[in-house]
Amino acid sequence: MKIGYYQFRPLFGKTEKNLEKVITALESVGNNTDLIVLPELAFTGYYFKDRKELMDLAEDPADSRTLKALKVLCKSNDLYIVTGFAERSGDKVFNSAILIGPDGIEHIYRKLHLFNEEKNTFDPGDIPLSIQKVKGVRIGMMVCFDWAFPEVTRSLALQGAQIICHPSNLVLTFCQQAMLTRCLENRVFAITTNRFGADKRPQGELRFTGKSQIVAPGGLLVHRANSQKNEIFITEIDPSEAQNKSITPLNDILSDRRPDCYDALFKDK
Amino acid sequence: MKIGYYQFRPLFGKTEKNLEKVITALESVGNNTDLIVLPELAFTGYYFKDRKELMDLAEDPADSRTLKALKVLCKSNDLYIVTGFAERSGDKVFNSAILIGPDGIEHIYRKLHLFNEEKNTFDPGDIPLSIQKVKGVRIGMMVCFDWAFPEVTRSLALQGAQIICHPSNLVLTFCQQAMLTRCLENRVFAITTNRFGADKRPQGELRFTGKSQIVAPGGLLVHRANSQKNEIFITEIDPSEAQNKSITPLNDILSDRRPDCYDALFKDK
Repeated sequence: MKIGYYQFRPLFGKTEKNLEKVITALESVGNNTDLIVLPELAFTGYYFKDRKELMDLAEDPADSRTLKALKVLCKSNDLYIVTGFAERSGDKVFNSAILIGPDGIEHIYRKLHLFNEEKNTFDPGDIPLSIQKVKGVRIGMMVCFDWAFPEVTRSLALQGAQIICHPSNLVLTFCQQAMLTRCLENRVFAITTNRFGADKRPQGELRFTGKSQIVAPGGLLVHRANSQKNEIFITEIDPSEAQNKSITPLNDILSDRRPDCYDALFKDK
Repeated sequence: MKIGYYQFRPLFGKTEKNLEKVITALESVGNNTDLIVLPELAFTGYYFKDRKELMDLAEDPADSRTLKALKVLCKSNDLYIVTGFAERSGDKVFNSAILIGPDGIEHIYRKLHLFNEEKNTFDPGDIPLSIQKVKGVRIGMMVCFDWAFPEVTRSLALQGAQIICHPSNLVLTFCQQAMLTRCLENRVFAITTNRFGADKRPQGELRFTGKSQIVAPGGLLVHRANSQKNEIFITEIDPSEAQNKSITPLNDILSDRRPDCYDALFKDK
């Protein structure tokens, strides 16, 4: 299975220009790849000055020129894409990741753990964490700051995820290292696609840290991008490696859990 | 608050010699320290050839010369110790950690996640994860391989732990890095005390990796020991730092959890 990421610098508010950039990059790969992950909010940019601006730039998947163009690309290249996008749904708006394949939209995940000022503009996710199939392989989606909550990757792994698709717009520098731990403790692959560059807006400036990466089960770093550089990276993996949960001859990292002793985790439910 | 660890090389089966070593080291610190963590199975050694050998070396806390000597030390030096020990309880035997203070035994934790061949000799832990007070500060205990299960540190943090006391006999090399993630995602302190040297036994040899460490909230490494060296290390910390769970102005790493969306974690309960 060939998986990869496209790290780039979206321009704030320039949806069509960003889409063009993505299409050009992905077309250069040809029909030689199975799954590519793009950054969070890949087409709108990240740092909205208020909810109205976000609402104006967000798209309803039922009526989105951006997603339509990606569908065409996926169909002609027999490709699956996971990308972040601003999802309008009635009077709500979510920081979402979408899985698009040759047959169209497969699933939308709405970011559960909003980061900092996103709380002022986005609605929190309201759809359970779940698993999708990409050419027979089970993938799970999460967005950026979800990395900080071990419950997210764990929930996806317990549901059988082999590859975690993780569109990101990281401004902190902790995530890349922590994702090695996530892949160690769950024995899954993870594709973390980060953007680079900055959003300079009236309310301030945010700089993004790049260093997109692919990690293998056991926490092995397969590849990490530079901080401030375009990169399309594709690699071949054997997704069945993620089905082996043994960390020693007598330890299975999932079935050795002791949920009978994790009462504190359930208390707020 | 002054906290620390004593990294050393226990000799297999030489309980009295190992105890002497510990007493000598801890007396050298005087009554200038609040909490010291020792390695897992600090007095017996680690690699038992069978359950009978373990049973013969294990001690019942109600009748243990080792723990009695530590109690005397804690009383005279106004000190709290967390140490690993082999705990006999009727016909069961646990890989336990014990908290001893100036007033005697405060709590015993029995390792929940047994590592590899431990499954052939020890019984799995049967006591819930809980919090103890050390001079007004809330501590949580876990043992070695528990690090690999994010649920353990998380459960302790959700119950209010400020310092994770983590006696270890590590043979793998992943733990130290992963504990940075644990302290980042939970904003707690952690004292991981590892042993060094080897247990050469009829059934084989195990080598231990040292590098005991203290980590601060945010995943900041305070200090890490060498791999194969005795070290007693004491440092002053402000445990109230662990009460601040903010990772951004609008994010609290614990109250931002979404247990309503973590159904997969509860499924096996």
